[in-house]
Amino acid sequence: MILYNQEMDRILKTAEEKGRQVLPMGTVATYIPELGKADGSKLGICIRTKEGQIFQIGDTDTRFTIQSISKIVSLALAIEICGFETVFDKVGMEPSGEAFNSLVELDLNSNKPFNPMINSGALTISSLLHPELTFKQILEFTRKLCMDPDIQLNEAVYQSEMSHISRNRAIAYLLESKNIIETGVEESLTLYTKMCSLDVTAVSLANLAMVLAAGGVHPETGEQLLRPDTVKVVKTIMLTCGMYDGSGEFAVRVGIPTKSGVGGGLLSVVDGRLGIGVYGPALDAKGNWIAGRPLLEYLSEELKLHIFQ
Amino acid sequence: MILYNQEMDRILKTAEEKGRQVLPMGTVATYIPELGKADGSKLGICIRTKEGQIFQIGDTDTRFTIQSISKIVSLALAIEICGFETVFDKVGMEPSGEAFNSLVELDLNSNKPFNPMINSGALTISSLLHPELTFKQILEFTRKLCMDPDIQLNEAVYQSEMSHISRNRAIAYLLESKNIIETGVEESLTLYTKMCSLDVTAVSLANLAMVLAAGGVHPETGEQLLRPDTVKVVKTIMLTCGMYDGSGEFAVRVGIPTKSGVGGGLLSVVDGRLGIGVYGPALDAKGNWIAGRPLLEYLSEELKLHIFQ
Amino acid sequence: MILYNQEMDRILKTAEEKGRQVLPMGTVATYIPELGKADGSKLGICIRTKEGQIFQIGDTDTRFTIQSISKIVSLALAIEICGFETVFDKVGMEPSGEAFNSLVELDLNSNKPFNPMINSGALTISSLLHPELTFKQILEFTRKLCMDPDIQLNEAVYQSEMSHISRNRAIAYLLESKNIIETGVEESLTLYTKMCSLDVTAVSLANLAMVLAAGGVHPETGEQLLRPDTVKVVKTIMLTCGMYDGSGEFAVRVGIPTKSGVGGGLLSVVDGRLGIGVYGPALDAKGNWIAGRPLLEYLSEELKLHIFQ
Amino acid sequence: MILYNQEMDRILKTAEEKGRQVLPMGTVATYIPELGKADGSKLGICIRTKEGQIFQIGDTDTRFTIQSISKIVSLALAIEICGFETVFDKVGMEPSGEAFNSLVELDLNSNKPFNPMINSGALTISSLLHPELTFKQILEFTRKLCMDPDIQLNEAVYQSEMSHISRNRAIAYLLESKNIIETGVEESLTLYTKMCSLDVTAVSLANLAMVLAAGGVHPETGEQLLRPDTVKVVKTIMLTCGMYDGSGEFAVRVGIPTKSGVGGGLLSVVDGRLGIGVYGPALDAKGNWIAGRPLLEYLSEELKLHIFQ
Repeated sequence: MILYNQEMDRILKTAEEKGRQVLPMGTVATYIPELGKADGSKLGICIRTKEGQIFQIGDTDTRFTIQSISKIVSLALAIEICGFETVFDKVGMEPSGEAFNSLVELDLNSNKPFNPMINSGALTISSLLHPELTFKQILEFTRKLCMDPDIQLNEAVYQSEMSHISRNRAIAYLLESKNIIETGVEESLTLYTKMCSLDVTAVSLANLAMVLAAGGVHPETGEQLLRPDTVKVVKTIMLTCGMYDGSGEFAVRVGIPTKSGVGGGLLSVVDGRLGIGVYGPALDAKGNWIAGRPLLEYLSEELKLHIFQ
Repeated sequence: MILYNQEMDRILKTAEEKGRQVLPMGTVATYIPELGKADGSKLGICIRTKEGQIFQIGDTDTRFTIQSISKIVSLALAIEICGFETVFDKVGMEPSGEAFNSLVELDLNSNKPFNPMINSGALTISSLLHPELTFKQILEFTRKLCMDPDIQLNEAVYQSEMSHISRNRAIAYLLESKNIIETGVEESLTLYTKMCSLDVTAVSLANLAMVLAAGGVHPETGEQLLRPDTVKVVKTIMLTCGMYDGSGEFAVRVGIPTKSGVGGGLLSVVDGRLGIGVYGPALDAKGNWIAGRPLLEYLSEELKLHIFQ
Repeated sequence: MILYNQEMDRILKTAEEKGRQVLPMGTVATYIPELGKADGSKLGICIRTKEGQIFQIGDTDTRFTIQSISKIVSLALAIEICGFETVFDKVGMEPSGEAFNSLVELDLNSNKPFNPMINSGALTISSLLHPELTFKQILEFTRKLCMDPDIQLNEAVYQSEMSHISRNRAIAYLLESKNIIETGVEESLTLYTKMCSLDVTAVSLANLAMVLAAGGVHPETGEQLLRPDTVKVVKTIMLTCGMYDGSGEFAVRVGIPTKSGVGGGLLSVVDGRLGIGVYGPALDAKGNWIAGRPLLEYLSEELKLHIFQ
Repeated sequence: MILYNQEMDRILKTAEEKGRQVLPMGTVATYIPELGKADGSKLGICIRTKEGQIFQIGDTDTRFTIQSISKIVSLALAIEICGFETVFDKVGMEPSGEAFNSLVELDLNSNKPFNPMINSGALTISSLLHPELTFKQILEFTRKLCMDPDIQLNEAVYQSEMSHISRNRAIAYLLESKNIIETGVEESLTLYTKMCSLDVTAVSLANLAMVLAAGGVHPETGEQLLRPDTVKVVKTIMLTCGMYDGSGEFAVRVGIPTKSGVGGGLLSVVDGRLGIGVYGPALDAKGNWIAGRPLLEYLSEELKLHIFQ
């Protein structure tokens, strides 16, 4: 899919406008004080094609924390390192119909977290990763996937999150009580929170999305960073579970596997074609980025990106 | 996608074998006595390409009741006749994380049923359809979509279901109490149950699947039976919600929008390429056809049918 | 316990005042249109001692529908006629922690309704009664228990309730689907609704309460209307479950087995001593009578009526 | 209520027999390994009258850990020290309809734990106590209430519980995330677990029960150990919530405010008359002592102890 510059300029401009129209109705996440300092008027879009083209508009070089989008990286790594069966013996693959931080589902459904995109699932994934890899190794790999050697831990956000971690800590100990987390509750929490606190840009996310779109292959070096099977699983789970309890509607209206983060990032994978990264910290009531749906709905329609187009 | 006869013969034979291996572990649905009379050893597969080719093996001319697969037809019709906004004002698009006949979700989540594939959603769809169309008109349209003029109401199954309808009746009155069903609770129940009691074959289902795969176009006459937008919505909802609380895992492992029915039918849509219809009344614990997953997992892999292949 | 007239005049006057103070914050139930016609400023209190004394103040001769207080009569009758074991094989004795008309608890806890004071339990009780007794017989017995031969079915309320019965109908069919209601869903609904639509006064309720306080014996004729064991069960369930999900706090603060009804009635049984009937249709958010708690809290303290005083 | 020795000997013997009959069907709690070492064939009953009489049979001098019965002591202390309003601003008074260690109720019902008898409520009570009193002070007071200066912390059980505390830790951090526990999650957990690990006997429990029966007064010294109002609240909550999700049935069948502990203890308060302490570590499926109900049902009937007798 070769996109033409002029055409893309027009399309990105319109997409940006669609997004800016709804920005005033959103609010920056404040449950972590440090996140509350973000500028809700920021907006940036970056598109990368499998062929290596790059298109961007707006605030694409602003750094922000990756937050829940890191669940994608962790899931992919866990499948690669621990194996599909080990991972999904501990975590399900089902959309939950509940909010991202619910404990109810986990307490009633005693075997395992519904999926790796909700906090209970992601904490379980962390507990599988921390005995295998150091944070430094995972950070290094994230930089590679994002083609962004400047990704760092945002220490201020990390500290702020660690001091507002009661609910995740409750979830993690509940997982331990059910033998889902077997070792290192505190280590799992620390790793999870560090992963959420990595500073990325819309461009880093577009790069990561492109690698996923390309079946795990680095478009420039041709290196196979992730196995095709891993990537297939990750994309499917992004589609069915990536937008929490709004995933179904997003799949219908946009039809692109997408993961959002409360830091304001959004990563979309158009399988076999494009990677999209967006930044904009104003969120809607479900914790998804408010400009995300109209903006991506427009791109999906204009560029025929829906899985069932 | 042109498939070659010899190749397909071999593939279908292997798929049938994969299915037959697990048949002994399944059981025929018995909660409706009339369904309990089905022969659990039956197995039939039919594949139709968008180009009009047909491949089949096993019991593809056995008649069985369509059951929940009719939810696909009703949803498509409701979108066409009442409009997307009207339909989804009454029913959600979210996977529910709960069993197909749960009332819990509906009672806690007071606005609307999670999606049109669970009973509460399908009953709501029926309540939208019954003031607009007669059962005879809907039957006529179903015959057209399935290219099967011999589809009839199975009177014995219909009567049997009507005398075991307490739970659906409970759901329907709960919907009325929430003003989700606005008129005709009993009419909605009747229409819903009649739609479930239509006698189809694996070939009828493959035909219907092919129309969906072809964007709503009849492959022989070229007639636009359903609008492309309607078909896009239906396929997406099949993917995220079609296998109830096993939809997520099915999407990961098989990756083809699919809808099963307790009568033993299974309908899969490979977008832009194929329609698949399967028959086999032996079910697993979640009410999905037991041979379905291994059989379709094999076909998906062999023919590269996964959405993110 | 002999009470002195002058003393009681003062106490009742103060109790009435305590009630009147909060009346303006309550609202008349409106979910049944006919109930919405009640006059929220009405207030009446009647106290009867086991020895036959009667004290009253305010609107004690106003007729109003008994509503959920009839659950007391039905439960007592069912125990007498069907036996303790039969009744509690179908209905539990546990406080539910949920609202009076919840379906969730029933759907998750598949065996039986939590208790006979919530709608699902009371409908089950009705299903046990209707094959044994005609409505006329039950009405006759209610008149006797209340020492009030003028109790009639309020036809307007009955009709109004029957046309707003979807939720109870949903509950009843759910009970049928679980084989808890075995015969006559519609008959059970009718009987239940008729029982709720009986017109009583604060005096009728005080009389009924006195019979319960006196272990089932009519204080004037000495007739054993209910067996002591039946009455013991009824009083205990009133204490633990009578005020729905506010029962626990009511037991702590007031400590008198009490049952309220949305029609504005309230019946309290001071075991071995007194029966209290109150009327006042202004309700609080939980569907309990708003003046009830302050008024009864005062009476409980002043007359030392708390079970653990 | 003066009881006669000969009569009481016979009654206690029969009560012991009733208990011993069901012992074989129970099992010692094993979720804490140290508790699993208890001897399931032990059985001891002690009754103390308000007048100071003492009757006992069986293993009444065996030491065992008080476990959840300590919730009674903590609740009483918290009301005395922090005040009724402060305590019940943080914890409800409603029976929960759920198991003692459920998180569901707490997550859905966001304000506060249902009551102080379930773990979430008791942990909240601990968080109110730990800034006010040292463990040593509370231990001292417990010894006084139980008239047992030999009560000690059972170090082995305490250590065993601390290494199986994940679920309670999850609950405590969930409480912190909801601002119900405001300070010292780990301190609250430690205090709670220490209180559960106190070694008592059936006699200690009977003494404590007698103090509660006597309105907070020490029957020998006449000292007012707890205020009458505090004791009234505690007894009511024991009645409605003391036996977890079996409280309602226990109230109907036995009708005595009772609290059980998984260590095998059971404490019953016959208001104004008796205190009963029982020991027997064989438990039923709900975590209540298996011999408790038949034994107390017999005592309740024989001695007319039911609140509504």
